[in-house]
Amino acid sequence: MNKTRLEAFSDGVLAIIITIMVLELKVPEEHTLHALMELQNTFLSYLMSFIFIGIYWGNHHHLLHTVHHVNSKIIWANMGLLLTLSVVPFTTAWMGESHFEKIPLAAYSANLLICGISFFILQKTIMAHYTHSTKLIEALKKQEKKGVISTVLYIIALLSSLYYPWMAGLAIATVAVLWLIPDKNIEKALSE
Amino acid sequence: MNKTRLEAFSDGVLAIIITIMVLELKVPEEHTLHALMELQNTFLSYLMSFIFIGIYWGNHHHLLHTVHHVNSKIIWANMGLLLTLSVVPFTTAWMGESHFEKIPLAAYSANLLICGISFFILQKTIMAHYTHSTKLIEALKKQEKKGVISTVLYIIALLSSLYYPWMAGLAIATVAVLWLIPDKNIEKALSE
Amino acid sequence: MNKTRLEAFSDGVLAIIITIMVLELKVPEEHTLHALMELQNTFLSYLMSFIFIGIYWGNHHHLLHTVHHVNSKIIWANMGLLLTLSVVPFTTAWMGESHFEKIPLAAYSANLLICGISFFILQKTIMAHYTHSTKLIEALKKQEKKGVISTVLYIIALLSSLYYPWMAGLAIATVAVLWLIPDKNIEKALSE
Amino acid sequence: MNKTRLEAFSDGVLAIIITIMVLELKVPEEHTLHALMELQNTFLSYLMSFIFIGIYWGNHHHLLHTVHHVNSKIIWANMGLLLTLSVVPFTTAWMGESHFEKIPLAAYSANLLICGISFFILQKTIMAHYTHSTKLIEALKKQEKKGVISTVLYIIALLSSLYYPWMAGLAIATVAVLWLIPDKNIEKALSE
Repeated sequence: MNKTRLEAFSDGVLAIIITIMVLELKVPEEHTLHALMELQNTFLSYLMSFIFIGIYWGNHHHLLHTVHHVNSKIIWANMGLLLTLSVVPFTTAWMGESHFEKIPLAAYSANLLICGISFFILQKTIMAHYTHSTKLIEALKKQEKKGVISTVLYIIALLSSLYYPWMAGLAIATVAVLWLIPDKNIEKALSE
Repeated sequence: MNKTRLEAFSDGVLAIIITIMVLELKVPEEHTLHALMELQNTFLSYLMSFIFIGIYWGNHHHLLHTVHHVNSKIIWANMGLLLTLSVVPFTTAWMGESHFEKIPLAAYSANLLICGISFFILQKTIMAHYTHSTKLIEALKKQEKKGVISTVLYIIALLSSLYYPWMAGLAIATVAVLWLIPDKNIEKALSE
Repeated sequence: MNKTRLEAFSDGVLAIIITIMVLELKVPEEHTLHALMELQNTFLSYLMSFIFIGIYWGNHHHLLHTVHHVNSKIIWANMGLLLTLSVVPFTTAWMGESHFEKIPLAAYSANLLICGISFFILQKTIMAHYTHSTKLIEALKKQEKKGVISTVLYIIALLSSLYYPWMAGLAIATVAVLWLIPDKNIEKALSE
Repeated sequence: MNKTRLEAFSDGVLAIIITIMVLELKVPEEHTLHALMELQNTFLSYLMSFIFIGIYWGNHHHLLHTVHHVNSKIIWANMGLLLTLSVVPFTTAWMGESHFEKIPLAAYSANLLICGISFFILQKTIMAHYTHSTKLIEALKKQEKKGVISTVLYIIALLSSLYYPWMAGLAIATVAVLWLIPDKNIEKALSE
């Protein structure tokens, strides 16, 4: 079984997830700048989630690059990741509409944490089938540290969301920045 | 005519079906854990349907793998499957929002039953064009027993939904588990 | 420029059009069979449009098969077809919710007529670039008669919708049946 | 890293953006021609945005054609373009529903301006990696003039939207026409 359809299906689902979030930007009834400004929290949430889905798409891209043989375990680990990511538009909208209230912020943090765990499971499932090592595989293994740090930051976000919302926001933003910085090892491995 | 576009179109439709279901997770107006918890039945329905669409995607993947020549009959049998699956988000949402009321549960069971029949028709349509047998084709034929058992379970779900909703839920969950267990024959056929 | 992306983009748009129509099947508030039955006209409209989009997908598939070189004219003729088809979910929903009232039925008929004209323009644009004839091209040319008959039937549907709605429905259903019957010439050309 | 998935993902997102806009064509409650006519501004907005997304798809198509090696910078410049384009359905709907009121028209103009800037950034990012020149690259460089003129027209639209809405409309329509005229250099470069 080749991986073309797995990639195509995942790309389709990720493209839909990233785009339907914009449906939560409800058209304001008034036609004023003020009405538009009231959407700023919803838009900020959208922006954050757009970046996260974009990061996942890139990482998914790299990870699938190392796969030669797709089996049931990989298909279902991938479905698990898509499932957890598909809930992001929901938590994003709730967080935005609530203007970053505690519980919605906690729900968003929890969602990102679960997405991270799902990706980790997919990575482990795929890695269990490596028969030999390549530069890209080594680079992905080195990147696992980032995954651990992200997990810790997500937990901090989840715990702090109920008491210091700003700290949760900071922790989540830090994860985004962490992954937005291009990984030298991966760039090198891919260009070779 | 090659099958690339048939696969691409089906992947697109399945990706959209699996993702738009999450639009039924309506953002709660209150920002409490309690409000989130009230969505648990909607979420449970979503989870169940996500797994079912995932199973169909996998089976569709295997089935199309055995096709060399796409003709009108196969295209329309495939359209029939996509049509019945496209109604799943509707019955899923109705079942979830009704907190598993009898009629919506029966509608969901009926929908799954019809999806199963559509897949069976697609499989038979494709099988009618096999000119010789491969390991994968043999594995798919052995898998037909699962299809029969599933059909019986769907009918049990449909009949019991009006009297013992829990039995309908159990029957449907059993079908899901039945298909989630990787099929050894297919795995072997694909890896060879 | 190759046609892969044109096909992929068109498949994406058609997959979305065919699937978002189901979003118009609004979940009934009551949980009764009666409430479900009230959706029958909406569902019938959905079914009809699903078949039409399916037919267009198949015909688009055949037509693009004859293209070797994609230029701006073909891209925009294709965009024109996608534009007119993208309005189908709107007219479908209006027709269904109105229980086949005159004006919505006329709007639906007009929409189908315009879709037919758009497809005709795309076909002519593509045909203007044929450098030599193939079996498939000949089969497509023979099929043009069907296009003329369909156009006449759409016009009959449009005119009769305001006076004899049943006649409009009959004319539209006739077009669907006309295209659902596999075209022997095309089947033969494709299998060769 | 090859560009296939980047193209597939972008095609998916663009296909969804262009199609979900039609969801803003809300089905009228009344079943009269008058009710349909009241949607004309919404439809006109949809038509305009459909053309713009179509233009971006075509230009994206050409631009990606010149790419051989995809790196993080290109991925994120591309994500930036998709992000700004994904807001188009929102501003389109607001503009249409407001019947071209000043602020929504300004928001739409600003959105198009930002999309133009995003495309420019993507183009520069990709161009920074060219190792040698081809006919298509030269044609794209000549086309940059159009980009500058469009930017000026978008700024005119943005400024005039608050005082002379018709001028904003005219400026935006001029940009559309400018890009709808096939570029001879690109056509020639592609056909060679």
